[in-house]
Amino acid sequence: MQNFADRLITAIERRGHAACVNLDPVLEKLPAAIRGMAQANNSESAASALSKYGRAVIDAVGPLIPVVKINSAYFEVYGAAGVAAYAELIGHAHRAGLLVIGDVKRGDIGHTAEMYAQAHLGGSGDCVADAITINGYFGEDGIQPFVDAAANYGRGVFVLVRTSNPSAGAIQDIGVSDGRKVHELVAAQVTRWNSDPRLLGTRGYSSIGAVAGTRTQADAATLRKLMPQCYLLVPGYGAQGGIAEDFRPYFNRDGLGAIVAAGRSVIFAYERPEYQKIPWERAVETACNEFVRDLGRIRTAI
Amino acid sequence: MQNFADRLITAIERRGHAACVNLDPVLEKLPAAIRGMAQANNSESAASALSKYGRAVIDAVGPLIPVVKINSAYFEVYGAAGVAAYAELIGHAHRAGLLVIGDVKRGDIGHTAEMYAQAHLGGSGDCVADAITINGYFGEDGIQPFVDAAANYGRGVFVLVRTSNPSAGAIQDIGVSDGRKVHELVAAQVTRWNSDPRLLGTRGYSSIGAVAGTRTQADAATLRKLMPQCYLLVPGYGAQGGIAEDFRPYFNRDGLGAIVAAGRSVIFAYERPEYQKIPWERAVETACNEFVRDLGRIRTAI
Repeated sequence: MQNFADRLITAIERRGHAACVNLDPVLEKLPAAIRGMAQANNSESAASALSKYGRAVIDAVGPLIPVVKINSAYFEVYGAAGVAAYAELIGHAHRAGLLVIGDVKRGDIGHTAEMYAQAHLGGSGDCVADAITINGYFGEDGIQPFVDAAANYGRGVFVLVRTSNPSAGAIQDIGVSDGRKVHELVAAQVTRWNSDPRLLGTRGYSSIGAVAGTRTQADAATLRKLMPQCYLLVPGYGAQGGIAEDFRPYFNRDGLGAIVAAGRSVIFAYERPEYQKIPWERAVETACNEFVRDLGRIRTAI
Repeated sequence: MQNFADRLITAIERRGHAACVNLDPVLEKLPAAIRGMAQANNSESAASALSKYGRAVIDAVGPLIPVVKINSAYFEVYGAAGVAAYAELIGHAHRAGLLVIGDVKRGDIGHTAEMYAQAHLGGSGDCVADAITINGYFGEDGIQPFVDAAANYGRGVFVLVRTSNPSAGAIQDIGVSDGRKVHELVAAQVTRWNSDPRLLGTRGYSSIGAVAGTRTQADAATLRKLMPQCYLLVPGYGAQGGIAEDFRPYFNRDGLGAIVAAGRSVIFAYERPEYQKIPWERAVETACNEFVRDLGRIRTAI
């Protein structure tokens, strides 16, 4: 398959922006008619509700965005039935022409890492996405199997470099003897993979990206400079407090190099007072359009 | 439910040792009769083969050991069908009277971490184990939801502190300004959770354990001292090169505080020349008995 970074850039340029919607459905927040499908303590019916909701969200936002991120945790909570719904939504998003990032945060060592890579980037299973998020705590040889699978299958990886939670810094910002922080060492590793010709696309970007959930624009600029050929997956638009202007430092001068993700502000938009009078799918679509317009403005202004 | 650490110690004392078998099945290595059930590129049939094999392994080793560790990666590789087999084996192990550690290495932040905790330690899904492995790269607030779920449901957590892969040290052994290493900071966090009275059992051990894959006995002794009330989950018996004597430093003077895990040397024992003439299940049982005897000797000698 064609290089993931190239496929991603093609999709981004077709839409004119790098907006990603996070599909992290929570049963309690679904529209009443769908929520009502789920019976108490019945995982199958809950998983069916998530699937029905997820398909409708994909139908609403699919024509507007290049890529959707589906978070495995929200499906695993319903066990094997939930994972089947996760797999179903990957397929539905593909049929809607979207690229899919599987937000699975997997990581392990040796042969186990190879199996996770097969499960989510290769093999014959139904949970294979175009790219996944992975955890770098294991060091280089823990990540290598994911890099190799991405190379072999034309898929991508986003390595967790810096996460946006309050206590992330207690590990990730530890200063090492040469003055760098732990997450900057992970970033340096990502940069080394970025030079792997197997992963490099025709536009100069690698299929090995990074999750960059920094808390300041200065930190964002530092990560951008550390990993020039890397696609940054940036959480936090909307519900997490970000506005488009905040995301400017994540992009390169070519207007590429970052994906900005919005979750709750789009997929639960129907909870907002101003959207109470329109069908819930229309609320999601409208909120997605706002997001896309806001982000498109930033990108073209770079 | 009763405190996980107490349940674990009861099971260990009943068997007289702290041996854990890793159930990490690989289709290509299964006995020919079972492997033959799987059709090419058919995840359902492969998942059925893993399930049939796993149930037979559990039947063979169940009467010998207190706890089994089931590795999610080897099931996820067959997608939703594989996860259904994983769930089935958790149930089968429980019916065989075993405690189950779900080796899932999950980790995330905020609400997503809560969902993973529900999926694997709480909720109504079928992937709930007695304890799971989790990744600590996110810092304290990423782990807290797992700690809370363990407290609420009488279950346990093993935080990845030090992994045994060659390049783990590139992140985990980085020296910080006060002379400690990154993994020792994670250990210090684990120690703080160990003092949470919600998790503390009647025998003085906490339900918040640690994965301790050190490479030297000195490092093992350091981790043991850093986390005195912590159960250490120690990989590497057998196929990874360890013999029982190597595991002594992981135990406390009370003969408790560590679980030693063997994988391939037990579950694929039928590949060894000396076991070619007995049924494969009997080979697994025999190898497990060897492991158990070896480890039991160490433990009673402390």
